Amino acid sequence: MTDAFENQSQDNLETSLAQVQNLLARMRLAEENAYKQGGAQQDPTEDLVRTRNLTDLQRKLEDLHPADIAYILEALPLDERRLVWSLVHAENDGEILLEVSDSVRESLIQTMDKAELLAAAESLDTDEIADIAPDLPRDVIEELLTTLDAQKRAHLQSALAYPEDTVGALMDFEMVTIRADVTLEVALRYLRRLGELPDQLDKLFVVDRVDEIIGVLPLKRLLTTDPEASVAAVMVEDFVKFHPEDEAHEASQAFERYDLVMAPVVDVQGRLIGRLTVDAVVDYIRESADADMLSMAGLKEEEDLFSSVWHAAKNRWMWLAINLGTAFIASRVIGGFEGSIAKLTALAALMPIIAGIGGNSGNQTTTVIIRGLALGHITQANARQLVKKEIGVALLNGLMWGSVVGVFAWLLYDNLALGGVMALAMLLNLLVAALAGIFIPMTLERVKRDPAIGSSVLLTAITDSMGFFIFLGLATLLLL
Amino acid sequence: MTDAFENQSQDNLETSLAQVQNLLARMRLAEENAYKQGGAQQDPTEDLVRTRNLTDLQRKLEDLHPADIAYILEALPLDERRLVWSLVHAENDGEILLEVSDSVRESLIQTMDKAELLAAAESLDTDEIADIAPDLPRDVIEELLTTLDAQKRAHLQSALAYPEDTVGALMDFEMVTIRADVTLEVALRYLRRLGELPDQLDKLFVVDRVDEIIGVLPLKRLLTTDPEASVAAVMVEDFVKFHPEDEAHEASQAFERYDLVMAPVVDVQGRLIGRLTVDAVVDYIRESADADMLSMAGLKEEEDLFSSVWHAAKNRWMWLAINLGTAFIASRVIGGFEGSIAKLTALAALMPIIAGIGGNSGNQTTTVIIRGLALGHITQANARQLVKKEIGVALLNGLMWGSVVGVFAWLLYDNLALGGVMALAMLLNLLVAALAGIFIPMTLERVKRDPAIGSSVLLTAITDSMGFFIFLGLATLLLL
Repeated sequence: MTDAFENQSQDNLETSLAQVQNLLARMRLAEENAYKQGGAQQDPTEDLVRTRNLTDLQRKLEDLHPADIAYILEALPLDERRLVWSLVHAENDGEILLEVSDSVRESLIQTMDKAELLAAAESLDTDEIADIAPDLPRDVIEELLTTLDAQKRAHLQSALAYPEDTVGALMDFEMVTIRADVTLEVALRYLRRLGELPDQLDKLFVVDRVDEIIGVLPLKRLLTTDPEASVAAVMVEDFVKFHPEDEAHEASQAFERYDLVMAPVVDVQGRLIGRLTVDAVVDYIRESADADMLSMAGLKEEEDLFSSVWHAAKNRWMWLAINLGTAFIASRVIGGFEGSIAKLTALAALMPIIAGIGGNSGNQTTTVIIRGLALGHITQANARQLVKKEIGVALLNGLMWGSVVGVFAWLLYDNLALGGVMALAMLLNLLVAALAGIFIPMTLERVKRDPAIGSSVLLTAITDSMGFFIFLGLATLLLL
Repeated sequence: MTDAFENQSQDNLETSLAQVQNLLARMRLAEENAYKQGGAQQDPTEDLVRTRNLTDLQRKLEDLHPADIAYILEALPLDERRLVWSLVHAENDGEILLEVSDSVRESLIQTMDKAELLAAAESLDTDEIADIAPDLPRDVIEELLTTLDAQKRAHLQSALAYPEDTVGALMDFEMVTIRADVTLEVALRYLRRLGELPDQLDKLFVVDRVDEIIGVLPLKRLLTTDPEASVAAVMVEDFVKFHPEDEAHEASQAFERYDLVMAPVVDVQGRLIGRLTVDAVVDYIRESADADMLSMAGLKEEEDLFSSVWHAAKNRWMWLAINLGTAFIASRVIGGFEGSIAKLTALAALMPIIAGIGGNSGNQTTTVIIRGLALGHITQANARQLVKKEIGVALLNGLMWGSVVGVFAWLLYDNLALGGVMALAMLLNLLVAALAGIFIPMTLERVKRDPAIGSSVLLTAITDSMGFFIFLGLATLLLL
């Protein structure tokens, strides 16, 4: 499929991006000049320059692989992105929409009318249409369903039916099946007659009369075994298969563990309904790692680098609001000790240290636990061991860093008792942080929520409030 | 290669882990009973039970794929992990060492003597030996180099020579090459004579007399084209290739972009030296996403879930120490305003809100920028646009959240001026956070450091100190 385009290394790709940016900058300059000279009577040479630049840009884009155009579109501000998008050959629209990120896809689809969207979607496979379907207007999808033939419509509807993050949402339908009772020679002739094979095909699926999969025939076996042998004799009967309801997360771990290139997807009766390929898995792994990173930083979803200020702000509000809520609570904890602070203002200067290091240390624990949960390494049987280990680390860190901050406070304020309170508060808050760092992600996991989302905010809420409470409380009890 | 083992879905895998844990628990119980009854005269039936449990465990392990045993080892505490490891068939040692994480590999290698390590390493391909080499004792590697044949030694030395995170460190040497002047028929016969093909092989490399790669022959073309055609006529001359010095990060993006299964690795003269396969790329993507997540949370490196307290604490000290340093600075900033706080203790309760929300908001900006840098979307040409957008978001958020916290402070303390200072300080600190959130990762990138590491700590240092300074400074100027 991609053979016709010039594939590019990252260096070449960056050069292409720079060339496009350069052409766009020149066009912008020319337009600004024209505007300065008065918009009414335009200089004909300016017009000529603009046309030449446009042609250069269009020619440059024609040479590029759809995935590379997608990359360039991601890196362009909205108005330039729209211009480049309008110059792209319509036949590549579908492929490019598939490659760009969700947020950029949205910005591109906004500029297209119904006919263009239909044409773009029709150039794609059904599983690919399903991938971009969430961003397509309702009426486009309905019209698409009427234009597809019965089999494709069934494929599209089934792909749309599976929730995101399941194997069903990632699978495609491009597979080659054979019967067990023929010889390899026949299989080879059959392939030659097909003329073209799907990408990422490393095995044929061997099915019986009711489409139940009974084995797989790896191409490498087909190529290295005597053609007289029968498929039944050569096929592998013990192979990895998935159900469409399986979690994509677990399927991706199986691909990683068994170094798979593709695997069949079957229904409960064992009948073949599709296949999962490694390129879909790679995309999934990358996207879910990105999504984790974004949500841990408090972004609701992936954000177009050049989205409008309004869009970006909305994407960030939810977590800011939650953080503000927890900050208000922490603030009220401090408010309860204002009398103590008035008597000993050093407390105000020292309290953020206790809260801050507690938060950092708890986040380290939470991250180790989240990773262990994602990899399936944490079970009922070993959870107690983990608690013991984290409490051990907290005690060790508490004694060590507690001493450091204790000495710091003692020397700075020439107050030994204050140093002692500081050290004790640090030790206690690190213990709180360790326990919260374990139980927050484990509880989220138990109630079937993603522990990567929200753990950090909850944790900081606890280490802040408890840090202030422990330190100011101890100081009030022991110092005042 | 993996055909002989029972491949398992995640569910089965978790069941296997539970079975192993169960057997181990029974053995532990039996031992504790024996101990209670006095270690000297052991009950012969206890001994029998223990032996039977051991046999059950060994039988269970024999059925498992090396990758699955690796998974189970990761999930076991140290003493049980050592017991299971001692029961594993020695012939699988190499494969398992390859599959476990670095930290667990270390714990396993510690239990092995030189002869065992040599045997395990010799069961692996040279590129695989290179993968575990950093954890092997120096003398084992030296002995290995003397036992390998000349070609393998050269492979191992070249694989060891390339730094981690380059294509050279990920490539392997299992490829099949043919000449351009033969027919497909000859190529097919050649493959049949080879008898076995490497995993993840989706194309043959077409080389000339000096081993320069002049094309690739996808297996799907080989299978669907008339066997009379010559390789030269059917091969693809425009294909993605890598140099061993290329960054693994960029190669993985190319695999993702062009949906590759494998690609040739060539030297500067274009001579074939190895290949990069998608399974190595998948492992790399997963590992580097994990490493980013861990380092963003302030862990020096990947941590064995069951590492000793001492090991775990050491892994976490560096970032805790750095955080403590920045907390001390922030504390001194507050210390400079102790006089103001003594006069108006409400300041102490309100100041963490300004600092905290500044940190959250700056982290959102930093994360968007880090991701844009990693994907290569941020360039000189569009950086100004990004600054404009982030300042816009900061102004919008500052007005909105500033009003919220302003009203909160006003109502709580019945002090309108205090509310005004609060709102203004919030706005200013969000602007500081936006600028720091952009410039910190971009500066780290420019000085060739990973922006994912350290950006967050630096950012929080700035938003904390500046948040306290702005709020307490404004309050001192305007309120007191």
